[in-house]
Amino acid sequence: MRAAIFRNGEIAVDNLPDPSPAAGQVLVKTLACGICGSDLHARKHAHRMVELARHFPDRKPMDLARDVVFGHEFCCEILDYGPATQRRLKPGTLVCSLPALLTPDGPRGIGYSNDHVGGYAERMLLSEPLLLEVPNGLAPEHAALTEPLAVGVHAVAKANISGDEVPLVIGCGPVGLAVIAALRIRGLHPIVAADYSPARRALAERMGAEIVVDPARNQPYTAWAEHAAMSPEQKAARPPLQAMLPALKPAVIFECVGVPGVLQQVFEGAPRDARIVVVGVCMETDRSEPMLGIMKELNVQYVLGYTPEEFATSLRLIAEGEVDAAALVTASVGIDGVAQAFADLANPERHTKIIIEPRR
Amino acid sequence: MRAAIFRNGEIAVDNLPDPSPAAGQVLVKTLACGICGSDLHARKHAHRMVELARHFPDRKPMDLARDVVFGHEFCCEILDYGPATQRRLKPGTLVCSLPALLTPDGPRGIGYSNDHVGGYAERMLLSEPLLLEVPNGLAPEHAALTEPLAVGVHAVAKANISGDEVPLVIGCGPVGLAVIAALRIRGLHPIVAADYSPARRALAERMGAEIVVDPARNQPYTAWAEHAAMSPEQKAARPPLQAMLPALKPAVIFECVGVPGVLQQVFEGAPRDARIVVVGVCMETDRSEPMLGIMKELNVQYVLGYTPEEFATSLRLIAEGEVDAAALVTASVGIDGVAQAFADLANPERHTKIIIEPRR
Repeated sequence: MRAAIFRNGEIAVDNLPDPSPAAGQVLVKTLACGICGSDLHARKHAHRMVELARHFPDRKPMDLARDVVFGHEFCCEILDYGPATQRRLKPGTLVCSLPALLTPDGPRGIGYSNDHVGGYAERMLLSEPLLLEVPNGLAPEHAALTEPLAVGVHAVAKANISGDEVPLVIGCGPVGLAVIAALRIRGLHPIVAADYSPARRALAERMGAEIVVDPARNQPYTAWAEHAAMSPEQKAARPPLQAMLPALKPAVIFECVGVPGVLQQVFEGAPRDARIVVVGVCMETDRSEPMLGIMKELNVQYVLGYTPEEFATSLRLIAEGEVDAAALVTASVGIDGVAQAFADLANPERHTKIIIEPRR
Repeated sequence: MRAAIFRNGEIAVDNLPDPSPAAGQVLVKTLACGICGSDLHARKHAHRMVELARHFPDRKPMDLARDVVFGHEFCCEILDYGPATQRRLKPGTLVCSLPALLTPDGPRGIGYSNDHVGGYAERMLLSEPLLLEVPNGLAPEHAALTEPLAVGVHAVAKANISGDEVPLVIGCGPVGLAVIAALRIRGLHPIVAADYSPARRALAERMGAEIVVDPARNQPYTAWAEHAAMSPEQKAARPPLQAMLPALKPAVIFECVGVPGVLQQVFEGAPRDARIVVVGVCMETDRSEPMLGIMKELNVQYVLGYTPEEFATSLRLIAEGEVDAAALVTASVGIDGVAQAFADLANPERHTKIIIEPRR
């Protein structure tokens, strides 16, 4: 089968042997697979991922001398079953799965592995118990957005927001947009969001942000504060020493950029007692001023991934039209177009999510 | 009056004019004042404190070209009242106060200010509404420990620990010891604590730690894990995917060291889903690997100070013998001994808390 392979630090197209399903596994045809920001990071910082893996002895790090097939945001069609499977879904059924294989040694990730090819190839293997049937005739390129939406659903769930807190989303790439969608679905408002790109700000509004800020023109935290004023009752109920502080509702800030220096910027801008949810995946060493965190008593919650339930919920939300998945897809490419797509994704005005359709 | 003054980066003894109480203020004689780790940091990193103050426009930064009198852990005797005071407590009464003056422009800190002298001097000014009478004939040198204990009481309150979490305290200086005392008072156990110093480990046990670790011999996180195993019922109740992870109770890690690199060490050692409470005050820029926080979904709560209620509770706990304050005091010095005490505090085997008795 043909695949776009991460090889020697670049994306190369080549043929790989067809995978063969083992016990509990399903052979599927990859219909659509999104290119994730983490894939772009991984191409640049794969050695860092390997280095950090030493802290997780239960994980097998990538061997960068060998091929890796990225792709963990996929929608597939069932082709065939391996042994010891229940075969509840017929061949031809469209399915999603969270990007993991259940192996006798525990779950193993799909997408950053030498052993398990991801969605940048014509075929792949999935674990039968993790299959979710795509409902409502949903198009594969939209079902493939389940994974990135689940990241936002999980981040908002982990944030455990009370009704009184006012969210601020820093960065409106696919992660920030998923967070905005998840906040809107939870009924939270106002949602304040910031991005330098006009196209991304327009998408943020489409996903549910009520106040969108261009950080080149306005301080996101100032815009946030204008929409986070306490009610007169809340102001009156504060104890005397607190009454000397600004009368603002609590802030929950979603850091959805994931490059060095952004968390420090958030520390500088955040109001006192803010909760910061780090959703952007920064693979490089970062620097910050702990004194700012200390003096403001900030809370930082790092998040990753999602639960199986959050993943299933995300597929349902897209299928039921609760999230406008189509708005996020800005292009589709075949296997041969992946390398160019990696370059094109650098421009936020042109692209949000590029979907690989291996049969294209 | 005589004072130990922070002047040109050093501690110098000199005479200062006696302070005179304004409206709402009380003139007090300083009987005892602890030397805080933050004072040692401040001598080294005062320029950083000034630099960071630009993020807090409501605070007046120190002018390092002018004198500063440190000292925010004090017990005093009332000498005289200024105008517009209620004078409920008689002159001669022993009092503590949280280190702030209530001014018409809002509260202003005592101890890192050009305008308000701290406890490293013979006399100082306090705000009448913040005075707490020292009960039970408690000695001033022990009442002066109210402030550092309040730091621990506040950190544990902010941690909001559920009964199921197992605490690990990294660093058993005065801050770590206060955290241990506050954890014990809350009835939490086992309490695991780590410090390189045998003297500090002995004090940690005296304050209530049940397992003390020498990081030079044992990994604190390994020792913690040995005492954090889930009960068989808890193990059985886990959902299938979680059942593949180590069967450990949740961790709450108190970082009580406050020097660059320690938070990164905690990130490396912490188990998945750990909550980290940063109580140590690191005044320098720090570096960390956000990917470790992300992959483990860590939570970091920075804390500072205490509420007036926590401060009052801390004084009561010491006065009622709930915390063995005497064990923490390793020396007393006069004004002339402060500079040497700063040097002596570098040795954790010899000293924990040195108390300044200005009249000595």
